[in-house]
Amino acid sequence: MGNEMKRLAILGSTGSIGQQTLEVVRKLPHHFQVVGLAARNNTDLLAKQIDEFKPDFVFCQDKKACLANTEYKLLSMEDIATHSQVDTVVIATSGKAGLAPTLAAVRAGKNVAMANKESLVMAGEIITNEAKINNARILPIDSEHSAIWQCLRGEIPPAAQLILTASGGPFRHYSPEELSLVTSEQALRHPSWQMGRKVTIDSATLMNKGLEIIETRWLFDIPFDNIKVLIHPESIIHSMVEFIDGVVKAQLSCPDMRLPIQYALSYPERLPNPELPRLDWSNIKGLTFEQPDFNTFSCLGLAIEAGKKGGTYPAVLCAADEVAVELFLSEHIKLTDIAGLVEKTLAEHDSTADPTLEEIVAADTWAREKVLKLINGDNP
Amino acid sequence: MGNEMKRLAILGSTGSIGQQTLEVVRKLPHHFQVVGLAARNNTDLLAKQIDEFKPDFVFCQDKKACLANTEYKLLSMEDIATHSQVDTVVIATSGKAGLAPTLAAVRAGKNVAMANKESLVMAGEIITNEAKINNARILPIDSEHSAIWQCLRGEIPPAAQLILTASGGPFRHYSPEELSLVTSEQALRHPSWQMGRKVTIDSATLMNKGLEIIETRWLFDIPFDNIKVLIHPESIIHSMVEFIDGVVKAQLSCPDMRLPIQYALSYPERLPNPELPRLDWSNIKGLTFEQPDFNTFSCLGLAIEAGKKGGTYPAVLCAADEVAVELFLSEHIKLTDIAGLVEKTLAEHDSTADPTLEEIVAADTWAREKVLKLINGDNP
Repeated sequence: MGNEMKRLAILGSTGSIGQQTLEVVRKLPHHFQVVGLAARNNTDLLAKQIDEFKPDFVFCQDKKACLANTEYKLLSMEDIATHSQVDTVVIATSGKAGLAPTLAAVRAGKNVAMANKESLVMAGEIITNEAKINNARILPIDSEHSAIWQCLRGEIPPAAQLILTASGGPFRHYSPEELSLVTSEQALRHPSWQMGRKVTIDSATLMNKGLEIIETRWLFDIPFDNIKVLIHPESIIHSMVEFIDGVVKAQLSCPDMRLPIQYALSYPERLPNPELPRLDWSNIKGLTFEQPDFNTFSCLGLAIEAGKKGGTYPAVLCAADEVAVELFLSEHIKLTDIAGLVEKTLAEHDSTADPTLEEIVAADTWAREKVLKLINGDNP
Repeated sequence: MGNEMKRLAILGSTGSIGQQTLEVVRKLPHHFQVVGLAARNNTDLLAKQIDEFKPDFVFCQDKKACLANTEYKLLSMEDIATHSQVDTVVIATSGKAGLAPTLAAVRAGKNVAMANKESLVMAGEIITNEAKINNARILPIDSEHSAIWQCLRGEIPPAAQLILTASGGPFRHYSPEELSLVTSEQALRHPSWQMGRKVTIDSATLMNKGLEIIETRWLFDIPFDNIKVLIHPESIIHSMVEFIDGVVKAQLSCPDMRLPIQYALSYPERLPNPELPRLDWSNIKGLTFEQPDFNTFSCLGLAIEAGKKGGTYPAVLCAADEVAVELFLSEHIKLTDIAGLVEKTLAEHDSTADPTLEEIVAADTWAREKVLKLINGDNP
């Protein structure tokens, strides 16, 4: 490393994580160079990003909007993710669109900075196995996983327990009845984090924490029973590790995604960045903790159960949740219906043990159709 | 390391830290072997310890009580600390009695597990320089320094800031007037830690934290201005490190000295020990923080100033405080008189720059006499 520039490909550059990744790069131009950008359909923003960062390779799903020119080459996401000129691939796409490029990058032995939850939830075993075989490093960007990764730094595994903190979302003390009346507008106002719409709703139902538990199991190769969730509304401790001697290490920072993004990019170095906020201890009066309410926030238990069962259950969990969240955002169902739809879909699923990637994708497709059938009256 | 036994010499084995070190050893007999024990005058307890741990070498200041016999050899503390059969020397003596054996152990290239504050405060520069030259490792046992050491594990220096937490002692919100009325009995009741008498009083005046700041400067080679103190009454976060990217790591545990003792002994491994308490997150409602009150607890500022000035000032600070604490415990002065006596002694001291060990010891002797002169009416 030292003073070498790291060459980055950012897949999903126009999303929330993609934009924040570029904010980090903008402030550290001597450390990072953007060689690839990929976006779905926000072509206006992508054009601006191309103009500013001058990547060599571009992917845009909306092909009409993005024509090859002399300044950059149009490539597929997989081709960008595996290109020899790329050191680190940032997977900032949302949903299952991240799966194929993640696997491609891992198989090419790249550093893969992961912000995409779905890939690890759906295919954690395949991805982490391929990473081992191909000597690829998966660098978590999610604040919780970054915190655990930082707490484990320099320590000898195994840890006794990983403690994922959760803000508890905006409806932390709601009863199931109150929760059922929540509007999408209310649910999109997260108390401490600025995030995309899907993950904000998942934070309100705690499904987000459930998905993170499954990711944690794969990222850190630890049994589900050694992963705990702790509600911590201030979102200052981003997660903790308990070691076998009873000592706990915690990672703390302002809730700002640029911090874990920068850490994943600069690892093993840490870089000073005056744009990043610092904790002001004269303003922090207290850090509080509560146990999660598994009854009201039943998505959490559903996710843990699907994770433990394995097979194609996690893919079904993920897909059913994604469709259900869309249905909530489009005001077709209540917030509390999300868990019910996911639960019914899981109950009717016929899982495949040790699934191939194709079987995982098929389970995903099945689950999406199943949820739509369920709300279209195929069930009571 | 691996499965090799670590051979320990425990200097100060009958004190609070010494006894807790032996508790750790008792539970981990396959990891640690006691080859040396040294004590001042608690010969009854020392005899029991000899009986249980069967050391090869013994030192007892009270020579009449402790005769050499066929089972162990009587040696000086320095000879025990430098013996070829000793891997790790635990410096658990209190006061300046630890200074000579610490230096001897460091010069012999031993692992030196340090619980003795005074040595590093008085002669931090000499000790840490000798450690570097002789490839000796100083392993902090104090909970705060152990926490910082653990947070720095695996990280690339320098850190941006070290944050020493302090319980604030039993008189945290007292006014100077209220503080002046405190009895020694009240002051000896520390809210969260079981410790020796001297360190308990130093905790009540925050002098303890001031001494720890000076130790921190030497243990971690960091400027005084990058060391902060934060009041944290629950004593669960034992200290924190802020890195250059703004991320903070904290080390947490139940307030039990056996945890940092065991870490220093087992480093770089961590060992499971069912006797050690674990944090129970269902019972931890909150962790709170306050800025220290430098006006009421003026010992803190005095220590920082003495540390910054360097020379023989820290030795004078330490010695004057030790005598003043004794005067408070014997009910000759008020708790609030400690700071005044230390301040006057420092003010009248003629410091030596880059002092030798002899000059440090002479400054210590001068300060002890000076405090007694001050209370015997040589000053207004």
